[in-house]
Amino acid sequence: MKKIGKQTYVLSNGVGIRCSHALVGEKEKQGPLGKYFKDFFTDDTFGQKTFEKAERHMLLTAIEDMLKRNNISISDLDVYIGGDILNQLVTSNYVAEQLQVPFIGAYSACSSVTESLALGSLLVDGGFCTKVLCSACSHFSAAERQYRYPLEFGNQRQAYSQWTVTGAGCSVLDKFATDMPKITKVCFGKVVDFGILDIANMGAAMAPAACDTLTAFLNDTKTAPADYDFIATGDLGKLGSDIFRELMSKNNYDIGNNYIDCGHMIFSSTQGCMQGGSGAGCSASVFSAYIYQKLKSKKFKKALLLATGALMSTTTNQQGDPIPAVSHLIMLEA
Amino acid sequence: MKKIGKQTYVLSNGVGIRCSHALVGEKEKQGPLGKYFKDFFTDDTFGQKTFEKAERHMLLTAIEDMLKRNNISISDLDVYIGGDILNQLVTSNYVAEQLQVPFIGAYSACSSVTESLALGSLLVDGGFCTKVLCSACSHFSAAERQYRYPLEFGNQRQAYSQWTVTGAGCSVLDKFATDMPKITKVCFGKVVDFGILDIANMGAAMAPAACDTLTAFLNDTKTAPADYDFIATGDLGKLGSDIFRELMSKNNYDIGNNYIDCGHMIFSSTQGCMQGGSGAGCSASVFSAYIYQKLKSKKFKKALLLATGALMSTTTNQQGDPIPAVSHLIMLEA
Repeated sequence: MKKIGKQTYVLSNGVGIRCSHALVGEKEKQGPLGKYFKDFFTDDTFGQKTFEKAERHMLLTAIEDMLKRNNISISDLDVYIGGDILNQLVTSNYVAEQLQVPFIGAYSACSSVTESLALGSLLVDGGFCTKVLCSACSHFSAAERQYRYPLEFGNQRQAYSQWTVTGAGCSVLDKFATDMPKITKVCFGKVVDFGILDIANMGAAMAPAACDTLTAFLNDTKTAPADYDFIATGDLGKLGSDIFRELMSKNNYDIGNNYIDCGHMIFSSTQGCMQGGSGAGCSASVFSAYIYQKLKSKKFKKALLLATGALMSTTTNQQGDPIPAVSHLIMLEA
Repeated sequence: MKKIGKQTYVLSNGVGIRCSHALVGEKEKQGPLGKYFKDFFTDDTFGQKTFEKAERHMLLTAIEDMLKRNNISISDLDVYIGGDILNQLVTSNYVAEQLQVPFIGAYSACSSVTESLALGSLLVDGGFCTKVLCSACSHFSAAERQYRYPLEFGNQRQAYSQWTVTGAGCSVLDKFATDMPKITKVCFGKVVDFGILDIANMGAAMAPAACDTLTAFLNDTKTAPADYDFIATGDLGKLGSDIFRELMSKNNYDIGNNYIDCGHMIFSSTQGCMQGGSGAGCSASVFSAYIYQKLKSKKFKKALLLATGALMSTTTNQQGDPIPAVSHLIMLEA
């Protein structure tokens, strides 16, 4: 059986990630992971008329550059699975239209990167696909005006807020990439909420989702955090990752020193991003530029990535509903 | 190999649909399919404070009723795959939170029903899951005010417009339901656009997507429309299905007399719905209440369902972008 425990799936031989590529904005390039972000752009409109079109252009550029540099033809791709945080996944949908690869829209907000990679790896392991393209992305200015305030309003940012990453991450799963970093297990998360009503306080909203999924995964696999040499959560930020650590310790798991949060890691405290980065492009770009590369160079041997998504809607938020969250996990081996 | 041709997947023994259930509003009950819609509600707020909460309550009620009547316990479900047309899939997300089943958010607008069923059937056939819950839904008043005008505005409706169905459809795919109607092939669609800029004209926007996917499927399987005793498109409406018929004939396929459109079928011309129904709940409820039941009673032996999604966003629409569309296909056998 390919399922163990309650919600974890085992991929018989692992599914190789043939290549992974990130493209980020200037602020991300200036952050602590700058040296890993080889590809970046300085004009946040990317030469386009709107921020929404800029996001689209960023994602398409990232995918096309990755395919070109790795000699993968678009016609080799069986399906494309992806998501973003703009309403109706417009970024991914328009890019899918450009690529003309059958497209499966995945939405779990900032957990879209692991939802896509998890689903894609099951389609490869299940014998359906040979090559699957996966992506996730976000753009600060497009997200900010959709979820919070008009950019022109220049609102003050709360001390517990995060900054949406301008970035895209994409990968190609390949049945035949047996010598590359592999996805060996996946765990789909449950939707949970912590009663958070404040759309700026996403770290607190998402921490219980990461805790729920990681606890389920550790129970299913009968392992402990120390069995992995690297554990990364999506975009909890500093505050959210502190809450996550505490919640895990209440579940009797010491998350240890090998734990990082992509949102906490991507910006430094001097960049004015408060608790750190967020957005579907946050864990997607950190995965492609940093985690994947460390696995490729065997610096990491066994890693867990739990991207985290705050499934907030401005409508339900204004109607007084708490923000639900979800976290999908992938286990990676060098 | 489980893939044939360019974009079609074959499920070795087919994946059985153990049960399928629809719950609709009063207008849908009064339409031509009324006698098939056994479950309906007359108060469109469903006793809730907002239409968004009413939609959620409708979906949860549909799922709980289905599980109860078929003696399926929530703990038997491996994963839940679903989508709706409210921003951030809030309906499905909140319902997933209530159910506490690991949740995979799927978004392809009104094609979410076939995206979910197609993905779910691959997860069962691939050996990962035993039981998968799938759903899609929409609510007229919640959708109308999100995508078009405030309800209080009382806008005139264009002659080519459609009416969002208030309804939910849900199903349980079950590895062991070998004597039930089965999904035997699936085909994920490409995103295409026809240059349509008018968000009321969805039938025209989606017709080329249905044509693209059906043509690909027929080519992949080397079959013709006459090989199926029932072909249904999602929610093209009267106008859209006429365009679809014409596009198919340009591709040298006569779609024949066994073709219906769920949107065209669900409302009669006297109900003031112009070209017919739309919304993710349209093909979802018609599938559960009508198509599935006809397969179960062997009235249909071999059917194709191509739900169609207009991936429109109010933001990109106002920025002058055309409406992209997609259609995912499932083949069903009695």
